[in-house]
Amino acid sequence: MSNATPTPISDIGEFALIDRMQKILGTSGDEDLLLGIGDDAAVYRIDDERAHVITTDALIETVHFDRSFMPTIHLGFKAISVNVSDVLAMNALPKYATVSLGLPNNISVEMVETFYRGVRKACEHYGMTLVGGDTTAARHLTVNVTVVGEAMQHELIFRRGARAGDALCVTGDLGGAYAGLKVLLRQREAIKEQGEAYEPDIDAYRYVIQRQLAPNAAIETIRDWRERGVRPNALIDISDGLGSEVHHICRASRVGARIFAAALPVALETREVANEFEEDVDLFALFGGDDYELLFSLPPDVLEDLDPQSFTQVGEVTPDEDEVVVQTPTGDTVALDASGYQHFGGNGTNGAAR
Amino acid sequence: MSNATPTPISDIGEFALIDRMQKILGTSGDEDLLLGIGDDAAVYRIDDERAHVITTDALIETVHFDRSFMPTIHLGFKAISVNVSDVLAMNALPKYATVSLGLPNNISVEMVETFYRGVRKACEHYGMTLVGGDTTAARHLTVNVTVVGEAMQHELIFRRGARAGDALCVTGDLGGAYAGLKVLLRQREAIKEQGEAYEPDIDAYRYVIQRQLAPNAAIETIRDWRERGVRPNALIDISDGLGSEVHHICRASRVGARIFAAALPVALETREVANEFEEDVDLFALFGGDDYELLFSLPPDVLEDLDPQSFTQVGEVTPDEDEVVVQTPTGDTVALDASGYQHFGGNGTNGAAR
Repeated sequence: MSNATPTPISDIGEFALIDRMQKILGTSGDEDLLLGIGDDAAVYRIDDERAHVITTDALIETVHFDRSFMPTIHLGFKAISVNVSDVLAMNALPKYATVSLGLPNNISVEMVETFYRGVRKACEHYGMTLVGGDTTAARHLTVNVTVVGEAMQHELIFRRGARAGDALCVTGDLGGAYAGLKVLLRQREAIKEQGEAYEPDIDAYRYVIQRQLAPNAAIETIRDWRERGVRPNALIDISDGLGSEVHHICRASRVGARIFAAALPVALETREVANEFEEDVDLFALFGGDDYELLFSLPPDVLEDLDPQSFTQVGEVTPDEDEVVVQTPTGDTVALDASGYQHFGGNGTNGAAR
Repeated sequence: MSNATPTPISDIGEFALIDRMQKILGTSGDEDLLLGIGDDAAVYRIDDERAHVITTDALIETVHFDRSFMPTIHLGFKAISVNVSDVLAMNALPKYATVSLGLPNNISVEMVETFYRGVRKACEHYGMTLVGGDTTAARHLTVNVTVVGEAMQHELIFRRGARAGDALCVTGDLGGAYAGLKVLLRQREAIKEQGEAYEPDIDAYRYVIQRQLAPNAAIETIRDWRERGVRPNALIDISDGLGSEVHHICRASRVGARIFAAALPVALETREVANEFEEDVDLFALFGGDDYELLFSLPPDVLEDLDPQSFTQVGEVTPDEDEVVVQTPTGDTVALDASGYQHFGGNGTNGAAR
């Protein structure tokens, strides 16, 4: 469209692309819109007390998943979980979903039915309803889900609320989904080399494979907070990796953070896979991604009001704007690279996108 | 997933696939959900008086558009229009949109910016706001839009409300988008044969090309009805073709319909293209598709309350359940084939999908 030389998206990266997009879109005159582009989900008032949040996410074959090791029922479940996690990250609960499916010629009716069984399972698990969708032809299997959730306006939590002195905590454990991906990719190679005779040892890796293929979003944590009357200061989904998301909270809140490497919660199964591959499990935990967990910040004295089983403190918020460091077990401090995020697995990806 | 032979989707068709999907999904226990899958958009109450409607639609390169003749700015505009039309078809007005973009490697930053200029233009035109999105890598340019709209519950119009004796009317004119596609496909062939030296005669076909590339959804009609206090009995978007959508209204309303071929509104430019290609312009109007117009039914005595410039009566609703006929100018009556819908243009499509 321009006469100038076209700029590859990988030249400017994801954040710059979003910045340019926001510049073009300008600001909205809609007074009910509490939050547009720039958090996990957009937020709009539906009356004086309640708000709806909306988020959309695509899973595209060859980019986000490999059909050779992603069972269709898990794909349906995961596509919902991915979006639910963004709704939870606003401290809202999911209500409605739409699913837009792009189907290549080699997908059968039975596979579509199995996909929807996974969607139903997820909807039941999260207490929500699939209300609509679109089915179209496509070259690659493409799943686009939109989820609408609801919260009281006073319950909403944004990225921008972190305060110096807050404890930084995560739900669940980290790096497992990436460990699962490593195992699945190795199995795919083995099948290529050894053919159908190869029998993957699924049992030994059940936990990490499940983390990769059928992740659960942290809805119990959100429900638990409501029951206990707890409301953290800042909240974000860390499916793009803890490393990059700490930076998002810090930038939005104009604070810094110190992460304690020794405190990162890692499952035994994840640690074993990292050892097997002779890789650093801390990198799995910081940058692996695809863990549908939440990162939140709240005053340390509120920690005792939480269910101790439901979270791990991984660091603290500091007043040093945009300075994010990792403290190693030996006490050294290293800067945490914001661009630690990488797209693992699949191909056809580029710098701006996931 | 099944041990039985997999069934190709083209064997059962789109309606059977949706039926199977609905069987798997079951019914929702959500009392606020007024309408799930099965109309142009899903509808849920947001308070005692108001409802939100939600719809999602994908535009996929090689299936729905050809990048060689679809300018990026029009793609952004059209992706919004396509979804707005489904919101209007519930007699609701659009409020919020999310855009999920799948970007192949050969898309530049400038093209993405131009795409969003088209989105902004559409949002301004329809009085709505883009609130969120997702950007990801993809093999083919993929645009998935979700639009949320709002209406008073008493304003909502469903497919199921048509009554015997109603007049059947459409907004705008028909067949133009298909005529535009014919011209664009011919130009693409000419460019292939004659190379860059070929100069397409855009001016002569400006109207039909605009109908194909940058359609306007019929928002003025919906606004006008509100001002005049008119509420038709049944309403549907006819972007899949008048022929199939009359059947949808009849099936949902348990009535029949008689369409008057002589009454089908066709622009002079559309008629000229049909003549040039030596094709029947009535088939363009009935089955061409991609006209983002509305079909509605209402008692004949209400017609005088409408702006006469805003619609054309094309037929009438009959008591003969599911019997849809076309009356030719000579007075003959022929059955209108429900499967008249076809996917024109592009490739990679299959029977179930558009």
